[in-house]
Amino acid sequence: MPQTMIPKKELVQEARTVAAALAQYSTMVVVGIGGSSQGLRAITSALGARKKTIIICDDLDPIAFQMATQHVDWKTTCINVVSKSGGTLEIMALASVVVDFLKKAVGEDWIHHVAVTTDPQVGFLRQWAKQHDLKTCQIPANVGGRFSIFTAVGLLPLCWAGYDIDALLLGAQSALADAAPKKWAEQQVEWDRSGRSIAVVMPYSSHLSDYARWFVQLWAESLGKSEVGQTPLVAIGTADQHAQLQMFAEGAKNKCIRFIIVKSWLQDIVVPESINPETSYLSGKSFGQLLTTAAETTAQALEQVDCPSYTIALPELNETALGHLMMCDIIMTLAAAKLYGVNPFGQPGVELGKKLWRQRIEA
Amino acid sequence: MPQTMIPKKELVQEARTVAAALAQYSTMVVVGIGGSSQGLRAITSALGARKKTIIICDDLDPIAFQMATQHVDWKTTCINVVSKSGGTLEIMALASVVVDFLKKAVGEDWIHHVAVTTDPQVGFLRQWAKQHDLKTCQIPANVGGRFSIFTAVGLLPLCWAGYDIDALLLGAQSALADAAPKKWAEQQVEWDRSGRSIAVVMPYSSHLSDYARWFVQLWAESLGKSEVGQTPLVAIGTADQHAQLQMFAEGAKNKCIRFIIVKSWLQDIVVPESINPETSYLSGKSFGQLLTTAAETTAQALEQVDCPSYTIALPELNETALGHLMMCDIIMTLAAAKLYGVNPFGQPGVELGKKLWRQRIEA
Repeated sequence: MPQTMIPKKELVQEARTVAAALAQYSTMVVVGIGGSSQGLRAITSALGARKKTIIICDDLDPIAFQMATQHVDWKTTCINVVSKSGGTLEIMALASVVVDFLKKAVGEDWIHHVAVTTDPQVGFLRQWAKQHDLKTCQIPANVGGRFSIFTAVGLLPLCWAGYDIDALLLGAQSALADAAPKKWAEQQVEWDRSGRSIAVVMPYSSHLSDYARWFVQLWAESLGKSEVGQTPLVAIGTADQHAQLQMFAEGAKNKCIRFIIVKSWLQDIVVPESINPETSYLSGKSFGQLLTTAAETTAQALEQVDCPSYTIALPELNETALGHLMMCDIIMTLAAAKLYGVNPFGQPGVELGKKLWRQRIEA
Repeated sequence: MPQTMIPKKELVQEARTVAAALAQYSTMVVVGIGGSSQGLRAITSALGARKKTIIICDDLDPIAFQMATQHVDWKTTCINVVSKSGGTLEIMALASVVVDFLKKAVGEDWIHHVAVTTDPQVGFLRQWAKQHDLKTCQIPANVGGRFSIFTAVGLLPLCWAGYDIDALLLGAQSALADAAPKKWAEQQVEWDRSGRSIAVVMPYSSHLSDYARWFVQLWAESLGKSEVGQTPLVAIGTADQHAQLQMFAEGAKNKCIRFIIVKSWLQDIVVPESINPETSYLSGKSFGQLLTTAAETTAQALEQVDCPSYTIALPELNETALGHLMMCDIIMTLAAAKLYGVNPFGQPGVELGKKLWRQRIEA
């Protein structure tokens, strides 16, 4: 039920209230991974930073972690620990480190700097929040991580930083009546069954790279079960015209492409007189125009070599458009799961790895 | 011939000489795309920044371009335009814009700020350099873009910024005697022929994301011909244990995995007392240890569901290790091309798209 992924008014209000209670801080460190970070990253990457800084910690790479946190002034920073289950190993490791930094910087006052976004009832984080009287937001029990972008997982940090969460939710709401996602699902599953087992998602904007990665989790983790499911693959235009297009055009005929273009850019760059007289046709063209025509002509070229595609056009990069697209993709994924006959929820296939990892560390 | 991709002494010297002539500048804007930027990005991402700043412009996304260039002080900045062919459309557009910025900032003096890295004889950039007496480095005529990292394409900016290019070249040289790459090639092609058509490359370090993308171009563009070639897919540990692992474990059985781990980290993070008593086993463990055990136990879990893998261990993230790995991957790719019976050079499949794009813009 896609509409269950849009939270009720009181939960939106809860996110707003916690955001307001954290308004005194200028930086928020979000500790979350997978469904607890990727959707947030998709939106903040697409829309660019606001005045307040969100730092997402989802990475055990020690150098990356140090680079992300080295300039943080913990006195003016709040921490938002996000985990549906409340016990994800990486989150426990990362949260232990950042809470330790915070305690060293502000002492007993650390509890005022910390919020927790987790299941309303169960799990360690909920218990920890009660113990220390931390601010909390809930992820409804029936909304899994990769479907949680419209809950407090997204709303709390986005609202806190100054993004327009009303527009985001309106965009998501409007997608519930959109007929396109079910058609996309039918098309993708039909392509998969005819041997197109790889679903390329190819935005023509590097600002949508993180959106594409969010889509990868949604599609892969929801459908990759019972030996079915199309494999999602990220390509970014135009860079991947130089890296992957050769393979799409002449490699194994197992791909189908979903292009995403941005129709209008708030700020665009216009090419001045070309340094090369042979490319004088570039002069006066904008980067946005070049990107759109690149996507269109790539689709055309691929059609000639029998590689099918469809194109999604975002009016511009804003909250409404992203909310709409992300909810469309959730609907498409649920519809595809129905066609495949798999349960889109849960990820049973990763439990063994988690268990082995824990055992190895404990040993 | 992999050894032809390591340049002769005089070409290494040429890169050093041009780097020295640009030493007065504190920022270098590299205008290049695909093979002209991705290898450089792989190395600088893996090793982190040096005192001098390299900005890579390979993106027509107008907002990304503005963010990359908005704080550039053109008076203390040099531009390195990199294109083997000399006429790539994106490069002409991007170079026209940055040269225009530069001319507005420094006037006639612009020619002292610009270097060109291109074919020794042909193409617009060579001609443009002659016309304005610009500094130049050559990409040997027989080395294609995606194989060019050890030529001036990599050496000039790396040497200029303070990376150890001797160590990089030594690492590459030592790979020529390494027996592993041919075995990897045989293994990958065998897996592909038995239905494992997707080659996942999964480093356990986000610093190797750009290396993985470099590998994607190398593998996809060299082998994706005549309807053969395994499709490369990037996954990053541990984030993709939450995003893609479910699909590797229980989705379509068409994947094989190449894990990459880093054995030793110059700076590591140690988890203090865990905030969660139930994960007290994390206390005292380092992020590096956690990453390595995560890769090992994921491999083990995948083996149990019949998903094959092998693991490459980098001693640490430094120039020697990266030079070695990148040359190993070049050797593997050439060996795989031989097994597939395809020509690893050139990318004929993208010509139609380029032509249609140009026609559309000219229209």
